[in-house]
Amino acid sequence: MDDFRKRTRVAVIGGNRPGRAALDQAGEVGRLLAARGAVLVCGGLGGVMEAAARGAREGGGLSIGILPGASPAEANPSIDIPIATGLGYTRNSLVVMNADVVIAVDGEYGTLSEIAYGFIHGKRIVGLGTWDIKGIIQARDPEEAVRLALG
Amino acid sequence: MDDFRKRTRVAVIGGNRPGRAALDQAGEVGRLLAARGAVLVCGGLGGVMEAAARGAREGGGLSIGILPGASPAEANPSIDIPIATGLGYTRNSLVVMNADVVIAVDGEYGTLSEIAYGFIHGKRIVGLGTWDIKGIIQARDPEEAVRLALG
Amino acid sequence: MDDFRKRTRVAVIGGNRPGRAALDQAGEVGRLLAARGAVLVCGGLGGVMEAAARGAREGGGLSIGILPGASPAEANPSIDIPIATGLGYTRNSLVVMNADVVIAVDGEYGTLSEIAYGFIHGKRIVGLGTWDIKGIIQARDPEEAVRLALG
Amino acid sequence: MDDFRKRTRVAVIGGNRPGRAALDQAGEVGRLLAARGAVLVCGGLGGVMEAAARGAREGGGLSIGILPGASPAEANPSIDIPIATGLGYTRNSLVVMNADVVIAVDGEYGTLSEIAYGFIHGKRIVGLGTWDIKGIIQARDPEEAVRLALG
Repeated sequence: MDDFRKRTRVAVIGGNRPGRAALDQAGEVGRLLAARGAVLVCGGLGGVMEAAARGAREGGGLSIGILPGASPAEANPSIDIPIATGLGYTRNSLVVMNADVVIAVDGEYGTLSEIAYGFIHGKRIVGLGTWDIKGIIQARDPEEAVRLALG
Repeated sequence: MDDFRKRTRVAVIGGNRPGRAALDQAGEVGRLLAARGAVLVCGGLGGVMEAAARGAREGGGLSIGILPGASPAEANPSIDIPIATGLGYTRNSLVVMNADVVIAVDGEYGTLSEIAYGFIHGKRIVGLGTWDIKGIIQARDPEEAVRLALG
Repeated sequence: MDDFRKRTRVAVIGGNRPGRAALDQAGEVGRLLAARGAVLVCGGLGGVMEAAARGAREGGGLSIGILPGASPAEANPSIDIPIATGLGYTRNSLVVMNADVVIAVDGEYGTLSEIAYGFIHGKRIVGLGTWDIKGIIQARDPEEAVRLALG
Repeated sequence: MDDFRKRTRVAVIGGNRPGRAALDQAGEVGRLLAARGAVLVCGGLGGVMEAAARGAREGGGLSIGILPGASPAEANPSIDIPIATGLGYTRNSLVVMNADVVIAVDGEYGTLSEIAYGFIHGKRIVGLGTWDIKGIIQARDPEEAVRLALG
């Protein structure tokens, strides 16, 4: 068994209904993270979460999906390790709590809550076409986002 | 016993370590809410939360404090109904979930998470010297904030 | 405003679908607690929770209902202070966390989880026709249950 | 990457401070589950949780640890996928929510809360020297426990 504990965990956060460009960026972020050996953490549902998880799977990486509902089956099909919480949107705090660093792609108020929790939990946050909040390190493209996230 | 169920609930959110001006504003918001018969909901700790609860008590109102820790005794002395959650900062979601409308005074990332959850839970949010986030109705002073909140 | 902070808080736990005898006992427990000046804490829904809250209201007492859903409106009509959590059944832990002492009336697995959490959180638990778990102080009737709870 | 989504998940629950016999049983349960291809879910800390996770690792299996604290680093060294929750003991509900079936070894009130939540969430529960609660399928040894769990 691979030693998943030694791998850097990166949360990719973003909305359920992003446009085509954001989905492509999220997928590319997922692939690049997998190529660098990082474990993907996300909210496990659709949109940016699903695109990033699909990218991670294409790149041979592992993905963890921290879900709002009470059933692991709720996760999108690309999630390797679904974690049910039954906490509803309150689970957003747990998504970023479980990452070493965060990449925010696009996103609405759910993503804003995760950005806020990222800072509350002391994580570095890289942005890609997302909210303009003080403290976020804004990147121009997926390559730069992953480079800024993994250092 | 008063019928607390019929009263409008207003969450006053804001940081633990605001400046003097924000504390004065939070206290005035608490007093005005009590005068209008609203129930105050807050995070139950210090700073803006304590100033607002003290104001509510001075105005003869009721305050509910939704706490991060596992003991109701953690609440500041002006809270009437402390609710322990043991959820840590993840309890921020519950603060705004329990209000009909939200007033944000000053604040840092914790307040930002509550603003985001306010919108996630579909609440109106009035701002007083707080984050500049789309959707917030910005007020100039406590009187205007309470008027905008209670309509 | 009454000083609710000085009052002892008693959680009354029990199932959603108890028989007539258990409902009568829960109502009597609620009335006796109110008469003794205690604040009632419960899960805010039907069955034992509703009977106890109705008893508390008849006795002029205050009741807090800690709800599984995300809306305070979900509480039964006798609850004075509904607290929404959005945690689903995971909120059972919070019900007993917010009490000084617990009275268990009847009940199924939900009540068993609250009994377990009562002991985890270090509370005294008085039983009335409920689970036979080591540590529970079994009472014969509502009067004895309230006397054992309030000492 | 292995398809972890297709594997049966088994929660092994039990106390932090069991005796030697219970630790040996938990380790054997972990090894047998790994040999049968199941993924282990547990609370991620010491005692039964650590023994089961060590057994799973020895058997070449994967283990998920759902932790009370806010840091994944809190997990015992045999956990492959630590999940921080920051929920304290309230996380017990999430441990069993994330399993298809539950094996309870020894245990105190924390384990009792997980047994109760197992039934609340509709899971089959196999017992090995644990609480005598109606509905638990009691096994005599680790082999029988794993056979009863995996059917």
